[in-house]
Amino acid sequence: MMKIDVLSLFPEMFPGVFGSSILKKAAEQKAVSYQVVNFRTFADNKHQTVDDYPYGGGAGMVLKPQPIFDAVTHLKEQAESDKPRVILLCPQGKTYNQKMAEELAQEKHLIFICGHYEGYDERIREHVITDEISIGDYVLTGGELGAMVIIDSVVRLLPKVLGNEESHMRDSFSTGLLEHPHYTRPADFRGMKVPDVLISGNHRLIDEWRAKESLRRTYERRPDLLEKVELTDEQKKWLHEIESLKK
Amino acid sequence: MMKIDVLSLFPEMFPGVFGSSILKKAAEQKAVSYQVVNFRTFADNKHQTVDDYPYGGGAGMVLKPQPIFDAVTHLKEQAESDKPRVILLCPQGKTYNQKMAEELAQEKHLIFICGHYEGYDERIREHVITDEISIGDYVLTGGELGAMVIIDSVVRLLPKVLGNEESHMRDSFSTGLLEHPHYTRPADFRGMKVPDVLISGNHRLIDEWRAKESLRRTYERRPDLLEKVELTDEQKKWLHEIESLKK
Repeated sequence: MMKIDVLSLFPEMFPGVFGSSILKKAAEQKAVSYQVVNFRTFADNKHQTVDDYPYGGGAGMVLKPQPIFDAVTHLKEQAESDKPRVILLCPQGKTYNQKMAEELAQEKHLIFICGHYEGYDERIREHVITDEISIGDYVLTGGELGAMVIIDSVVRLLPKVLGNEESHMRDSFSTGLLEHPHYTRPADFRGMKVPDVLISGNHRLIDEWRAKESLRRTYERRPDLLEKVELTDEQKKWLHEIESLKK
Repeated sequence: MMKIDVLSLFPEMFPGVFGSSILKKAAEQKAVSYQVVNFRTFADNKHQTVDDYPYGGGAGMVLKPQPIFDAVTHLKEQAESDKPRVILLCPQGKTYNQKMAEELAQEKHLIFICGHYEGYDERIREHVITDEISIGDYVLTGGELGAMVIIDSVVRLLPKVLGNEESHMRDSFSTGLLEHPHYTRPADFRGMKVPDVLISGNHRLIDEWRAKESLRRTYERRPDLLEKVELTDEQKKWLHEIESLKK
């Protein structure tokens, strides 16, 4: 079972997410267990202060080392794990991607540290953290949403968590191209019709239409992905057709 | 006041996030209002079905057009807004960034459509949606976490939502470089010390140390950002120093 611990000053953000859909199902199946800990409870000062002014002056507060050092030590002892991945969510981190999700899914114990608009004392980075991750090039109020995103992407990769139907979407990514369009009933919805080929019953034509549309959509929206994919001769021919139509 | 509507089959995921920290404060200040609607309640069939098998066969289910068309029409009428941004969270979308957050922060009404491992009937894309967005190159179970990420990044940009202290982090991004390290008390934490310069009281040296460290961290972790920034002559000199030390 994978153990996931989250250190946050806003633990109330998590139950609604951990208690829904796949993340809930994974916990029920005992593929994973979640624990959210408010690291304020580890502060050894009377007022449970977790931040303080920065040395050298300037605006903004900085998270003190002591509460986070002691909270992480406690979580390691509790889990009896020597080598958890201790992940700091921060804009300076490595940009998250699916390959990192697959790598984290191999671990037994993940600890996420979520700051909240404060900076982190650098000694936390140097001595506690194993990974600094950013989920994208945008500014969020805290690390909590980033932790949820990583947890969702990792837990759905754990063995047996996804059913056959749900795993469809994962499979569709493995081609390296964007998905083709989907249609369901009715064939005519308020005058908007499903392409004829999809109701033709000719599976060779349907497969070809889907393969071409997948290629077209990738070409139009994410041409960068085409550079990373090994295309078949047929796909190369289609790509030339698509390109020439655009000119 | 900005109006934010979310269509989701898992509305219970949202209250913990909308009820914490800056998103809560923004609603209390009447800078924004949130509404989460389960679009299953708009399904006009007896069993409130929202998905169906794909035309042309294959694994996975597809979200039907009717419930989403009718839910969006209802939300537009309710808000008396003709031109909301209707945002679909999906891996095929444009990769989200801070510039898009700033653009969305100018809008009066945002509607987010969150699917959950199903595909979307293409007619929803063609006739209802104004924007398709992906928050990064990783696979999530549904659009809910993506919607929360976008909402957090947008709401914190609304006028008066962030206090002075909280806005520090936003400002620090505007240089285009990663932040320098931060330290707070104690100066000696279990043998781990704060750099002398920061407790020297010499503000010229402190500013120079911070500027160099910011440059060094960006060079080491995100050299791509350096290509987008106009460096001063002094910064260029420091960058040469940093590069030569690495060789």
